[in-house]
Amino acid sequence: MRTVDLLILGASQVVTVAPDAEAWGEDRPGPLAGTAMQDVGVLEDGAVAIHRGRIVAVGPTNEITKAYRGMRRVFARGRVVMPGFVDPHTHPVFAKFREDEFAQRCRGADYEAILAAGGGIHASARALQGTPRAKLLSDLLPRLDRFLLHGTTLIEGKSGYGLTKASELRSLSVLRSADRQHPIDIVRTFLGAHAVPPDRRRRDYIREIIDEMIPLVAERGLAEFCDVFVERGAFTVPEAERILRAARRHGLRAKVHADQFRDGGGALLAAKMKAISVEHVDATGPAGIHALHKAGTIPVLLPSASVFTGLRHLPNGRRFIDAGLPVALSTDFNPGTSPTENQGLVASLACSLLGMTPEEAVVAITRNAAAAIGREDEHGMLVPGHRANLVILDAPSYTFLPYRMGTNLVHAVVVRGRVVVRRGRIQNVK
Amino acid sequence: MRTVDLLILGASQVVTVAPDAEAWGEDRPGPLAGTAMQDVGVLEDGAVAIHRGRIVAVGPTNEITKAYRGMRRVFARGRVVMPGFVDPHTHPVFAKFREDEFAQRCRGADYEAILAAGGGIHASARALQGTPRAKLLSDLLPRLDRFLLHGTTLIEGKSGYGLTKASELRSLSVLRSADRQHPIDIVRTFLGAHAVPPDRRRRDYIREIIDEMIPLVAERGLAEFCDVFVERGAFTVPEAERILRAARRHGLRAKVHADQFRDGGGALLAAKMKAISVEHVDATGPAGIHALHKAGTIPVLLPSASVFTGLRHLPNGRRFIDAGLPVALSTDFNPGTSPTENQGLVASLACSLLGMTPEEAVVAITRNAAAAIGREDEHGMLVPGHRANLVILDAPSYTFLPYRMGTNLVHAVVVRGRVVVRRGRIQNVK
Repeated sequence: MRTVDLLILGASQVVTVAPDAEAWGEDRPGPLAGTAMQDVGVLEDGAVAIHRGRIVAVGPTNEITKAYRGMRRVFARGRVVMPGFVDPHTHPVFAKFREDEFAQRCRGADYEAILAAGGGIHASARALQGTPRAKLLSDLLPRLDRFLLHGTTLIEGKSGYGLTKASELRSLSVLRSADRQHPIDIVRTFLGAHAVPPDRRRRDYIREIIDEMIPLVAERGLAEFCDVFVERGAFTVPEAERILRAARRHGLRAKVHADQFRDGGGALLAAKMKAISVEHVDATGPAGIHALHKAGTIPVLLPSASVFTGLRHLPNGRRFIDAGLPVALSTDFNPGTSPTENQGLVASLACSLLGMTPEEAVVAITRNAAAAIGREDEHGMLVPGHRANLVILDAPSYTFLPYRMGTNLVHAVVVRGRVVVRRGRIQNVK
Repeated sequence: MRTVDLLILGASQVVTVAPDAEAWGEDRPGPLAGTAMQDVGVLEDGAVAIHRGRIVAVGPTNEITKAYRGMRRVFARGRVVMPGFVDPHTHPVFAKFREDEFAQRCRGADYEAILAAGGGIHASARALQGTPRAKLLSDLLPRLDRFLLHGTTLIEGKSGYGLTKASELRSLSVLRSADRQHPIDIVRTFLGAHAVPPDRRRRDYIREIIDEMIPLVAERGLAEFCDVFVERGAFTVPEAERILRAARRHGLRAKVHADQFRDGGGALLAAKMKAISVEHVDATGPAGIHALHKAGTIPVLLPSASVFTGLRHLPNGRRFIDAGLPVALSTDFNPGTSPTENQGLVASLACSLLGMTPEEAVVAITRNAAAAIGREDEHGMLVPGHRANLVILDAPSYTFLPYRMGTNLVHAVVVRGRVVVRRGRIQNVK
């Protein structure tokens, strides 16, 4: 009988998202792809044993209680225990929300017109450039609380609202500080190539990204990924390739924003650069899908951004999965086109609007989302050795997560073995 | 200096939804219609004085604090205070959620096929018929908790999953008990005409509704409205008219489910019957809109049902408002086509997908929703004499409610002057 820090007992379902765990052997587990996304690995009347922030065992309650004694015990009767949600594409560092632009759009203003009038990304950049580091950090922390309250325990966070060397570095540094101070884990991505600032010459800004920003980001260990927004009005495929090659030379792996409005070759570039993931892909065609499949690049779909901006474009989740790819989902949390931290809602939208099943949606916000940011060895599954980051849902089966659209079912959240949300409220932590 | 039970002070905005209050005089205030829906009545640095469960004063904080001393004081600095949300169309009494059908639909099954196989409303009816009253009530209460946690303080609740005399009456009686036991107020609607049970002859069932159910519902005071589902596969316009005329003879006012999939004349019937409201109206044409306008019938739009079922139909909010009508919004909470209690999300969808502005969405989930169920004299506005039912949002302006799509911003909820939700958690009540 071994004593452990925490036992979670009697869950109606423990969803491991590791139905293939027996077969791993020495292999590092990858994302689930294609038809394998249909199996989320369910244990009924399940239990999880946790010690020193890690999962030590997952199994039927009667077996776990024979083998382990818990210093603390949590009873999850009638509830689902599943991995903490992973959100692999967010823009959480900004100086202000853009609710004013949202209201303008509701009154009929066009996004392009708002951008042309100095709004959109440029409004965020101006605001951020004038905001001190401490304020950026203190504004970020309550947003991270909301991620946690909605069940997310790991996010990828991008810079990209700085658009000057100093502000981009500051944004990444704020993310690093937040990662240390807040229970949520944050993986950092440099997105200096989010837009060309209006006061800069295009080639000068790209040169600064390549010659100055990327080397500094790498040298200071401020990010592990480099992302580029490949779209009309942002960066071309050749520009993005130059930037991503420079990033690779400095050890930053590629991510790409691609094909949001039209198939502009962004997915093909992502595949060519062996990007870990490619995001949006609302308009990616068969050639792009084939290339992503060969390259092992994970498409990350962002349906809440499509809904929020009026559904002119919508990614087709079914098409990617039927082609045998792994798919991940994300909120795209940002102040312009998707101001929501709710990954449960994203899972719902994936089922209702992208042709995905509840199982695929669950895999896409856990294991595959973790793989899209290189964290599948520690996050996104409930298996021994993984971080003890998990969510207890006030529902008898995982199907309720996408089914109960927009209702927050999160009852408790555990991060590294500590209960950080209980009955809908953040617990005193740190 | 008058002493009152509760003062709420220093709100960044108090949203009264009564910009026209000065002009009321002796008139009973109605819903806001057309362009009047653009003004929600905002007081900055506002305060609300509450005594014996009613609002006694609303004004600038410095004036209210001069006139009133609070036994209890709540500081709402940086937050919005607005009326508790009203949800004017819900089906909350059912024996089980239908997450299994949702999963089948996600895997490609057709709703018609599910219905033909005994699913849909019929599955709910079979399950409810075999469920004792006490179980129906104990299952209902946590759903009401979730309404409250998402900011709703008054709902309309329908029967309609009974489809036998005994089960319909039991459903309404469960709603009456819940209304007494739970802080949420419930207005009851008889919806025996939700579907024809598969084992009944059509004309026999309609005769039972008219000759037996309606008289009993009225005699026992179990409902104040009678609703009919007018749609292919449900009830025809002439059948609905017979039912609604019988209801009127017994003092039950009409509501109508109409034109969800096609313009079948349901809105015209609602107008003809002077229904208080008509729901769905996704496909209502110009003649229907004109008739509703003349009759003073309020269209209640249900966008979450449209999204949940894959967006084959979507009501056009703009068209109704531009025609000078008042519009209300609702979750349509039910286990088949909209299992969400989140009126904030509905407000978001109205802005993103129905062409409505944030102001219109706020009016549509408060004052106009109250008017759609005959409660605008006590609910849906923050004015002296009204019930002290209000929501404190963790946001600096009301625009954030629709803008922060699917993120639950509710910080606190007050019902009849008592704080029933605080920092995202139900307080011990009753």
